[in-house]
Amino acid sequence: MINRLVSKIKQTNAPIVVGLDPTLKYIPKHIMDKAIQEQGETLEAAAEAVWQFNKGIVDAVSDLIPAVKPQIAMYEQFGIPGLMAFARTVSYCKEKGLVVIGDVKRGDIGSTSGAYATGHLGKVTIGSKTIYPFDEDFVTVNPYLGSDGVRPFMDVCKEEKKGIFVLVKTSNPSSGELQDKVIENGSTIYEHVGKMVDEWGKELMGDDYSYVGAVAGATYPEMGKILREMMPKTYILVPGYGAQGGKGKDLVHFFNKDGLGAIVNSSRGIIAAYQSDAYKDTYGPENFADAARAAVLDMKEDIAQALG
Amino acid sequence: MINRLVSKIKQTNAPIVVGLDPTLKYIPKHIMDKAIQEQGETLEAAAEAVWQFNKGIVDAVSDLIPAVKPQIAMYEQFGIPGLMAFARTVSYCKEKGLVVIGDVKRGDIGSTSGAYATGHLGKVTIGSKTIYPFDEDFVTVNPYLGSDGVRPFMDVCKEEKKGIFVLVKTSNPSSGELQDKVIENGSTIYEHVGKMVDEWGKELMGDDYSYVGAVAGATYPEMGKILREMMPKTYILVPGYGAQGGKGKDLVHFFNKDGLGAIVNSSRGIIAAYQSDAYKDTYGPENFADAARAAVLDMKEDIAQALG
Repeated sequence: MINRLVSKIKQTNAPIVVGLDPTLKYIPKHIMDKAIQEQGETLEAAAEAVWQFNKGIVDAVSDLIPAVKPQIAMYEQFGIPGLMAFARTVSYCKEKGLVVIGDVKRGDIGSTSGAYATGHLGKVTIGSKTIYPFDEDFVTVNPYLGSDGVRPFMDVCKEEKKGIFVLVKTSNPSSGELQDKVIENGSTIYEHVGKMVDEWGKELMGDDYSYVGAVAGATYPEMGKILREMMPKTYILVPGYGAQGGKGKDLVHFFNKDGLGAIVNSSRGIIAAYQSDAYKDTYGPENFADAARAAVLDMKEDIAQALG
Repeated sequence: MINRLVSKIKQTNAPIVVGLDPTLKYIPKHIMDKAIQEQGETLEAAAEAVWQFNKGIVDAVSDLIPAVKPQIAMYEQFGIPGLMAFARTVSYCKEKGLVVIGDVKRGDIGSTSGAYATGHLGKVTIGSKTIYPFDEDFVTVNPYLGSDGVRPFMDVCKEEKKGIFVLVKTSNPSSGELQDKVIENGSTIYEHVGKMVDEWGKELMGDDYSYVGAVAGATYPEMGKILREMMPKTYILVPGYGAQGGKGKDLVHFFNKDGLGAIVNSSRGIIAAYQSDAYKDTYGPENFADAARAAVLDMKEDIAQALG
């Protein structure tokens, strides 16, 4: 799957992943109103609105980008109907040929991580049948429990030729409270995790990059530079571009000299582009999908210029 | 909710939480066969078997214990039908008067943690209605992203009078890879997180203990002792007893002098008791629920003796 991701990045010439993180405040009123009219003021209506919104965005941008990253929390907040919209979104995006990165940030003790890996990347056996429950292509993984929380994901990745992105240095303001702490050997926690990711990655290599990727936020470009050098064969998923404050010029450190090695996420900046100052005069809520397409094209240009 | 948990622990005289972590290998064949007969070899059948198994256990032990802890991964592995069984289990246990700790180990950047907190502890507003999607009483939270990944849970706890248990020192063999690293000031990462939990807890106090609890594994009793002293007002959720190797005598350090301050989880040791050497000669698969009841009574005795 990492080979497929790399090949799709080359083909689209866009190291971009669109974060499908639909909160209700991003969903145009006409979509929400219609859903409530049809299904009442229910979780089902919220889930239907999320699905219609996602479908509009995906239809408008799927030819431009290699991958999407639905953030499961935004679906889980609407309970079972929300998670059904998540599953439907994953399935639809795969039909459209997109690589799907499930942003689930799971991680637990070994047997429990195994269950998450099975549910999101692998298959369960029931009687004589095998079934893929959610069937994303990649998921994000939290490393706080150490290697026996990560290895069960790697085992499933090996079997299914899928991948993970392990949280190393996250994009949020307080990420340093743990991740920047300096440990015995003079390295930081995020460097320590980066080193583990590099080691795990060697066991699961694709053609040029590993099935084991890393998450490092655009909001910390200097740390991205350190991690880039430390993990040469690791694909870096870079959140924090756009709405969180990361700029095109900050991204250059996350890429290798071959122009590969990183994929940059934007969520709000794309899916809620029609609400932003840059696009709202041209695109109204009815044209939210066209605004998303324009925002993807602008992001592609911004990154291309930064990578020079 | 922390007051209710403490009062139920006193009332049952059992600082015990039963982990409802039903993997298929624990479910008696007659339950699985019946589910497959009714629903085919489907995720729905697996979910139905999980639900029937849980109901049997809960009915057999609910008068003995204050709380249950369903591990959501074990449900998520069966996709949407599995998560429906999770929701049904949460709801049934609450009807039975049990405190429900959703073992979800979520944690993300601020807005995303907010969505998880809403989905699991809080309510969403859809049109003019408010709905509680999963409505657990407590959830477990992963601290790797720092305080802005935890505070959104605290905000919802404050509003709903619910609680969280933050991962501090987990029970698994590799937990030390990050958690035991020594940082600048000479403390370990788990001590550093323990200190943060203590501080967060002061902002959200119940009568005697805080709404902000901690997770610390029975497999590391000496570290439990350190944490106990460091976080006097923090309830500690203690996994790792029983099948993972923690013994009654290891537990004493996790409790305060008042005999409170800790609640010990056992999953496999209770729900799969009928498969274990200690109970399998007395209880067959048909009597899995009676075996679970016997195991709870023995665990209660073991802990009472240890606390002496």
